[in-house]
Amino acid sequence: MADTWLPSLITATPQEGFELAITLSRRGVKYTQPDMETLKQLRPEYAQSADGLTAASQVIAINFQTVSAANNYWRG
Amino acid sequence: MADTWLPSLITATPQEGFELAITLSRRGVKYTQPDMETLKQLRPEYAQSADGLTAASQVIAINFQTVSAANNYWRG
Amino acid sequence: MADTWLPSLITATPQEGFELAITLSRRGVKYTQPDMETLKQLRPEYAQSADGLTAASQVIAINFQTVSAANNYWRG
Amino acid sequence: MADTWLPSLITATPQEGFELAITLSRRGVKYTQPDMETLKQLRPEYAQSADGLTAASQVIAINFQTVSAANNYWRG
Amino acid sequence: MADTWLPSLITATPQEGFELAITLSRRGVKYTQPDMETLKQLRPEYAQSADGLTAASQVIAINFQTVSAANNYWRG
Amino acid sequence: MADTWLPSLITATPQEGFELAITLSRRGVKYTQPDMETLKQLRPEYAQSADGLTAASQVIAINFQTVSAANNYWRG
Repeated sequence: MADTWLPSLITATPQEGFELAITLSRRGVKYTQPDMETLKQLRPEYAQSADGLTAASQVIAINFQTVSAANNYWRG
Repeated sequence: MADTWLPSLITATPQEGFELAITLSRRGVKYTQPDMETLKQLRPEYAQSADGLTAASQVIAINFQTVSAANNYWRG
Repeated sequence: MADTWLPSLITATPQEGFELAITLSRRGVKYTQPDMETLKQLRPEYAQSADGLTAASQVIAINFQTVSAANNYWRG
Repeated sequence: MADTWLPSLITATPQEGFELAITLSRRGVKYTQPDMETLKQLRPEYAQSADGLTAASQVIAINFQTVSAANNYWRG
Repeated sequence: MADTWLPSLITATPQEGFELAITLSRRGVKYTQPDMETLKQLRPEYAQSADGLTAASQVIAINFQTVSAANNYWRG
Repeated sequence: MADTWLPSLITATPQEGFELAITLSRRGVKYTQPDMETLKQLRPEYAQSADGLTAASQVIAINFQTVSAANNYWRG
């Protein structure tokens, strides 16, 4: 992937940090399976499965740990 | 999601921090599957499954690590 | 849940800290499935399954990381 | 459990720390299923399953993180 | 493996750090199964499975925690 | 296990640290199932399964976090 999609881990607010964690989680998937058509076909498999959604939320939680530490937890 | 749902990771007590960890876990699910109707239908799938409940508790535990660190573990 | 069940993450000993980690793990389950009757019915599903027990032990381990850090590892 | 099994997280060597991590992982299981007879019957289920062994090794790894941090990584 | 593939955890940007996390995740697989032919055959099994992709993204997230901490989160 | 296999978490390079993480992951398995014959029989079960390899890579990633922190990320 030649484009710049992650210039920094710093965000203005915790909520933007959480959304960056989602981006990181999705990028982890896309690097593993770059074909957008395949990804689109797989979407119902996890987005309509309770286990799949919990697993997705777990990856987001792990990435949110990283982003939160990077931002000193937005302690201000 | 345009609304502000995460203005801060700081909470007054560990228990409120734990409840924020639950909110973060649920938000991870909702960002992945925004359709409330689908989410409602999936609920019995994990809330009445031992594996599903343990998995949910694990995501909460990971998010609670983040919230606890943000609050310096409420050491006072 | 209106009651106060988590006033502090500080415990006198590592063992009490481990037991607090168990409490946190169970609370994560109870917040997700508050119905005690359902929880009782699900108990054999994980308490008599090797995978279920390992998964439960993993959630405890994650929460024990949090409690241990909060207590500076009881280094004295 | 009335007995004292975890007086400290401090160990003399990394290897003893790893063995303490194993103890913590087993205790997490025993607190969840205290019946020794049931535990004995479940043993083949994970000790003779590749997935079960990897999962057991993962819980040990998580607990070893805690013990290692407690001991300042035995940096001497 | 005799070649040097990991001289440093330091990267110039977060994005390069994320890509290093992917390398670490793949190396973990290759050390366990060094036969490239077998790995090639297994690829469709996870790259075309929603669960497999989420699991892959999770390993990347864990390794990205390590790389991010090593780089002080590229705080500059 | 009476032999000394883990005298230190310190390694000269990140790559040796990664290899130590692999050793730790395997030791976690061996402590749980010490019978080498059984382990040999189980090998195809995970080394030829995409899920098994991803799970193995995840345990390595967790142990690599520990080894990396112990070595201050080899920042030099």
